[in-house]
Amino acid sequence: RIDSDRLLGRLMSLGQDGALEGGGVCRLALSDKDKLGRDRVVDWMKELGLRVTIDKIGNLMGFLPGREDLSPVVLGSHIDTVATGGLYDGNLGVLAGLEVISVLKDSGYVPLRPIVVAAFTNEEGARFAPDMLGSAVDRGSLDLETALAIKDSDGFVIAEELARIGYAGEAEPGHIDPYCFFELHVEQGPVLEEEGEQIGAVTGVQGISWTEYVIEGISNHAGTTPMRLRHDAGFAAASVAVAARKVAEEIGDGQVVTVGVNELNPNLVNVIARSARLTVDMRNIDEQKLQQAEKRLAEEIAAICKAEGVRYTSRTLARFEPVMFDQNMVDLIADVAMEQGRSVRCMSSGAGHDAQMFAPVCPTAMVFVPSQGGISHNIEEYTSPEDIKAGANVLLQAALTKAEE
Amino acid sequence: RIDSDRLLGRLMSLGQDGALEGGGVCRLALSDKDKLGRDRVVDWMKELGLRVTIDKIGNLMGFLPGREDLSPVVLGSHIDTVATGGLYDGNLGVLAGLEVISVLKDSGYVPLRPIVVAAFTNEEGARFAPDMLGSAVDRGSLDLETALAIKDSDGFVIAEELARIGYAGEAEPGHIDPYCFFELHVEQGPVLEEEGEQIGAVTGVQGISWTEYVIEGISNHAGTTPMRLRHDAGFAAASVAVAARKVAEEIGDGQVVTVGVNELNPNLVNVIARSARLTVDMRNIDEQKLQQAEKRLAEEIAAICKAEGVRYTSRTLARFEPVMFDQNMVDLIADVAMEQGRSVRCMSSGAGHDAQMFAPVCPTAMVFVPSQGGISHNIEEYTSPEDIKAGANVLLQAALTKAEE
Ligand SMILES: NC(=O)NCCC(=O)O
Ligand SMILES: NC(=O)NCCC(=O)O
Repeated sequence: RIDSDRLLGRLMSLGQDGALEGGGVCRLALSDKDKLGRDRVVDWMKELGLRVTIDKIGNLMGFLPGREDLSPVVLGSHIDTVATGGLYDGNLGVLAGLEVISVLKDSGYVPLRPIVVAAFTNEEGARFAPDMLGSAVDRGSLDLETALAIKDSDGFVIAEELARIGYAGEAEPGHIDPYCFFELHVEQGPVLEEEGEQIGAVTGVQGISWTEYVIEGISNHAGTTPMRLRHDAGFAAASVAVAARKVAEEIGDGQVVTVGVNELNPNLVNVIARSARLTVDMRNIDEQKLQQAEKRLAEEIAAICKAEGVRYTSRTLARFEPVMFDQNMVDLIADVAMEQGRSVRCMSSGAGHDAQMFAPVCPTAMVFVPSQGGISHNIEEYTSPEDIKAGANVLLQAALTKAEE
Repeated sequence: RIDSDRLLGRLMSLGQDGALEGGGVCRLALSDKDKLGRDRVVDWMKELGLRVTIDKIGNLMGFLPGREDLSPVVLGSHIDTVATGGLYDGNLGVLAGLEVISVLKDSGYVPLRPIVVAAFTNEEGARFAPDMLGSAVDRGSLDLETALAIKDSDGFVIAEELARIGYAGEAEPGHIDPYCFFELHVEQGPVLEEEGEQIGAVTGVQGISWTEYVIEGISNHAGTTPMRLRHDAGFAAASVAVAARKVAEEIGDGQVVTVGVNELNPNLVNVIARSARLTVDMRNIDEQKLQQAEKRLAEEIAAICKAEGVRYTSRTLARFEPVMFDQNMVDLIADVAMEQGRSVRCMSSGAGHDAQMFAPVCPTAMVFVPSQGGISHNIEEYTSPEDIKAGANVLLQAALTKAEE
């Protein structure tokens, strides 16, 4: 059984690395704060006697040998956060993995299969796109060299940032061949809370489409330039953000569209914007619908920019098709939860997760616990200690079941 | 007669302080580059034998005594620029003033009245709002203490920035009581060029209304938050920018509306924006129409924010009613220009100018010269040497006419 005080204690300790005034955490991938958080996790892994490896993209793995030298059960998630993130997103999955190890150590029990606890680099995609970058490299769906060359919006390169914080490891990504993969995560949405369920058995993850648009207009004087002569990159960007909402409504059926980034240049009160940079995040569990949304938005942008007489370029920052998890694994989560007296809901995930990178290569499952008010990527993110304990106990039991196969 | 090589030479020299790669200038008020530009202007004033004073808001004045100790003719403008500005905006008026002094020195002629060449602090309003700040303080329409406490968007305070660059002067603002005021300026709009006229005799300046809005929503996860549960500050801000354009079209008749600043926080691809800051610049030569535009926009913003479930606050950054220049002074400019064989157009100014702060207290006039392509607040801003020479000769003649009264 999980020691929830120990698990919560580790969550709170890790929350100190990058703690924001007023609550919440800013621990962007490969920042100084990420280094502190990684150091802390590595220390805990070593205290628990795990063999720690760091791979070339900075993924951390702590290895617990089993009774036999079989392929391991992997429990993984991430410790990077968005710039205004909470204590739970990602961190819970990594620290629940360490809690599983702690329970085994306390009891002296050695499972048949090895168990690996993993923390993947840059899951959030808040600093470097795409999201799920470390797990994508681990599973070979993103090329290591490509990933190492990716830059953030200030031009800092992943390879250099890894070296700078001392996490450019030696191990080859993918050096562990998982038997199966589990990830415990906060839901980050409103469903479990609204429906009063304690555990989500995650059936799959929505498709994710991230595009960056750069619009180039002509800067001019706000007072002297007649409306008909304007080529206003800021107006075009605003029109795109409004059109994005319209596309979401048109497609309906759970389609979400978000313009989270919108930057003007020179961004001055009396200057018509010369350029704008914006991002569009679109998701749908249905790949056809997602493609339809992408197509509609592309049409809207072309029409808006034509009407305003501005040019634009676009760049795909991330594109993942919807993922379905292994039905047996979903059933295992649901069965374990019900055995433990929990109410369970099968549900798909609105957020992307490292688990989705494992789904194509090994049996994979995720456990969700409720997010208060459905709030995440917000310093107010909160999940109750009872829900954390319930989720971690499901993870423990499910992992040990697989570790004895 | 103006020595246009000397005038252009000074324009090019001053353009080196804050020169941008690719052309244009960034010499934001009270920046290090502004200090360099001021030093250069002060050196020129001293070389010309002017008595230089710096007042408490950093306005520079160079004083040439007349044959009698009468109130002076003032020739003024500014040398601050926007972040992506041109070589001419403001600088031309100051350096044409120095050129008038140079012509007098060369000829040995001493006019009846003193002549003052002035460079006012922070005319652009690009760094500190309101615009025309130095001339407003000089003319008493803005209180010195209030002005000194104004902050830029990074929190830097005018009083401290003045001291830092060594331009917190001793003189009281308004220490010179002008007989009349002249400003030569580039038009910054398309009218003179489109109509093939060489000189604009400026009849007045549009009313200017600058408002900053801060919208507060709730940040949440872009993937997990259903569209109906969003309180997206970024979407609300974009909707305001689109509504602003609609209001301009509704009012018609030369009403201009610009959203030049739009900043999201946290500004991340997968986070619904928690807050947005935007500015709205509205102008009209008709005060009633301008008030109507302000009212319509306020209604739009209230409705948008209500529908999205976000809160907002607003703050007036600048508000100037339309200004009419003295008819005799406008006629003087037109007459001098025609005597010099120039084609003249009477026109109102789309941009704000230091001259408008003088209009209520003394006879005031402005001379416009054409802006190529109507482009300003852009590194491509350009006025031909012939047009500069023509404008400076009108300024010279008009100023000397008044200096003999
Ligand atoms: N779980 C999570 O917030 N992942 C970040 C990637 C995304 O879904 O935007
Ligand atoms: N002339 C000029 O560009 N002034 C700046 C103030 C404004 O009109 O926005």
